[in-house]
Amino acid sequence: MLETNINKESVGSIMLSTPKGMSDYLPEQQIVIEDIKKVVREIFERYGFVPLDTPGLENIDVLTSKGSGGEEIGKEIFTLKDRAGRRLGLRFDLTVPLARVFASNSNLNKPFKRYQEGKVWRQEFGTRTREFLQFDADTLGAKPGIADAEILAACQDIFNSLKIDVVIKVNNRKLLSDVIEKAGIEKAKVMDAIMCIDKLEKIGKKGVLKEAKIRGISEKIMSNVLKTLSGGLNCFKSYKGYDELLSIINYSKALGANVKFVPNLARGLDYYTGMVFEVFWKERPNKLSLAAGGRYDDLIARFSRKDEKVLAVGGSIGVTRIYEILKDKEGRKTNTKVFIAPIGTEEYCLKLATQLRKKGINSEIDLMERGLSANFRYADKKGILYSLVVGEKELKDKKFTLKSMKTGEQEKLTLKQIINKLNN
Amino acid sequence: MLETNINKESVGSIMLSTPKGMSDYLPEQQIVIEDIKKVVREIFERYGFVPLDTPGLENIDVLTSKGSGGEEIGKEIFTLKDRAGRRLGLRFDLTVPLARVFASNSNLNKPFKRYQEGKVWRQEFGTRTREFLQFDADTLGAKPGIADAEILAACQDIFNSLKIDVVIKVNNRKLLSDVIEKAGIEKAKVMDAIMCIDKLEKIGKKGVLKEAKIRGISEKIMSNVLKTLSGGLNCFKSYKGYDELLSIINYSKALGANVKFVPNLARGLDYYTGMVFEVFWKERPNKLSLAAGGRYDDLIARFSRKDEKVLAVGGSIGVTRIYEILKDKEGRKTNTKVFIAPIGTEEYCLKLATQLRKKGINSEIDLMERGLSANFRYADKKGILYSLVVGEKELKDKKFTLKSMKTGEQEKLTLKQIINKLNN
Repeated sequence: MLETNINKESVGSIMLSTPKGMSDYLPEQQIVIEDIKKVVREIFERYGFVPLDTPGLENIDVLTSKGSGGEEIGKEIFTLKDRAGRRLGLRFDLTVPLARVFASNSNLNKPFKRYQEGKVWRQEFGTRTREFLQFDADTLGAKPGIADAEILAACQDIFNSLKIDVVIKVNNRKLLSDVIEKAGIEKAKVMDAIMCIDKLEKIGKKGVLKEAKIRGISEKIMSNVLKTLSGGLNCFKSYKGYDELLSIINYSKALGANVKFVPNLARGLDYYTGMVFEVFWKERPNKLSLAAGGRYDDLIARFSRKDEKVLAVGGSIGVTRIYEILKDKEGRKTNTKVFIAPIGTEEYCLKLATQLRKKGINSEIDLMERGLSANFRYADKKGILYSLVVGEKELKDKKFTLKSMKTGEQEKLTLKQIINKLNN
Repeated sequence: MLETNINKESVGSIMLSTPKGMSDYLPEQQIVIEDIKKVVREIFERYGFVPLDTPGLENIDVLTSKGSGGEEIGKEIFTLKDRAGRRLGLRFDLTVPLARVFASNSNLNKPFKRYQEGKVWRQEFGTRTREFLQFDADTLGAKPGIADAEILAACQDIFNSLKIDVVIKVNNRKLLSDVIEKAGIEKAKVMDAIMCIDKLEKIGKKGVLKEAKIRGISEKIMSNVLKTLSGGLNCFKSYKGYDELLSIINYSKALGANVKFVPNLARGLDYYTGMVFEVFWKERPNKLSLAAGGRYDDLIARFSRKDEKVLAVGGSIGVTRIYEILKDKEGRKTNTKVFIAPIGTEEYCLKLATQLRKKGINSEIDLMERGLSANFRYADKKGILYSLVVGEKELKDKKFTLKSMKTGEQEKLTLKQIINKLNN
């Protein structure tokens, strides 16, 4: 008896939980995520992106190779060994796998425009979430310009479609680097300076200056840099990358996107080489970004045996974060349209269900041999909009009782009328 | 120089490969998989299943708990530790996570009908593949009958929709166990006997008898069992589970499925308690199954703190295996409908693309500043059906040249005409 109790305890405390930082998504929640994924997929396809899939695991050398971001991510990667001792890791983004795919398939035509959805895993300090659902679109082989604008425009379309009001912040790493260099920071310290500036929204000007000092950059010079970076677009005409950025902004407008130049936007990863962007929810413009990305013209060559440069630009949609915004909006709880309640007419109802399903109507039938009121309660709880009652009389008349679970209204209808009503 | 060469070598040999047993799916391949997933998703929803998602990783105790299948799978599980030393494993199926979810959410209504898509990982001896894309549907809380038939009927609909001719083999573990027991095999050896019978298609009668002997079962009795199991449905009237199986077969028919009773169908996992099924491609009826599942009324209670039995039935669609059948059928190579080739009209073409995309037409635009013939070659290679040529004259006339890449035919059309044509 005691032993049983102990077992059940351990069932309760250990076995029923998900791993730290990873979540289940119950049907009411997952319906929201499926809706988001559908929108993202459709819009990426509108822009001519095609789907790619890669394994959830990569050889560890791929993930930690220089410049992949894996060096910075370091201990955040989940690592493991297969039974033969090969060292593997869970992918932490979808960019590194893309780079590997492109480098290892020499027959891919340029531009190579792909989208990819999938989970990625990171065990970051300070963040709760360790499993993320990402949705990326990237264009390989195209120079700065329309390709960059397409990524921004696709993001705009996605958030418009999801009815989330966003601001799309853009900048250019070339411009940012030139500002830093012209202020007198030596070339070797430019990336350090960018990493400091990246934290401006989080730690403020004072924090950035402190961070600069730690990294061996003069506070005075950094202060000048920040001052320069507070100017509008016109102030940057004499800097590198200005024309490129201007054309991307104009192309974006032509594609229907409304982007905002933010000269201190930096992005944490060191592999960006040109346009960078982040998309924020207008209600929390300085919090976590809902999408982000940029141009990374040097990354893919590092995976390639050939010494050929591969131009690349892309963006990543944070599906999990978007879900966090949309989950609280009241939505539907199921995709099921009608619940069929047989009263001694099971076999007939199965055929009826088959006919409804053939017409594209998602239909559930009583599996519990419940009475009518219990069935109504179930349909109502599940959020199913209609119940269809089929007793002996209905079967004889070939007219069935369709009850709206929302209004309680009941109608006697033929199968054809029911199909018409439910398909509208 | 030498060092560079060494680096590039290692790039080539290690970094460019996927982990053993795991594959990339390039766009032409992934389009096929996305099509399969869409069909499966739609049909599961027709039957009233709703989506669920769970993490790719589970606490190791969940995966290896008694009766989860994890004991049998054992070394096939990929295991790892997080940075705090917690022991985790990659999920090897979607049934164990479902059991955990149901046991840990006491407020879920019965019947709980969910579908789930996701990757699972197993490092089996003898099989090449280590990462599988699975698509499962399960009904929890419903007794044997319609719920079982719905799983079979959904499978039938899926394969009909994919135009794959299949045979759906069904059996009942209760019936199989009763045959074994009545033949004189002791209760403790029944599962051993089932495991032997499971291998009949693979190793033949001789092999099964040999295997039986190893497991301490009389060859003579096993020979009698096999003889009994070669009979038709009518021969099993006096055995347990016959009525249940018959009603499931009849319900399946009412739902439009054509299932075949195969009395020696056993299924390898020990957690099945009633109906079991496997779906085979008619062209290779004894090879790997494309879908499989059954009833497992005892599994979920093992995860639960309450001592309540949870009835359960479900099936799993092997998307990766279906892909292997469908990949060779010539299909479309892209979802992009039209390629826009500007001749000095980039900015205008961006607006044109935006208008087409708003009408739901997937459109790609030249990103490489290529000439017309190079653009045609690209569109053709990518499998894009139409090219749209926009020069200064076309822009002035507001009539654009739409070229069919298949026939080579060219037409001058207004934007409205183009939208109509491409939307049909």
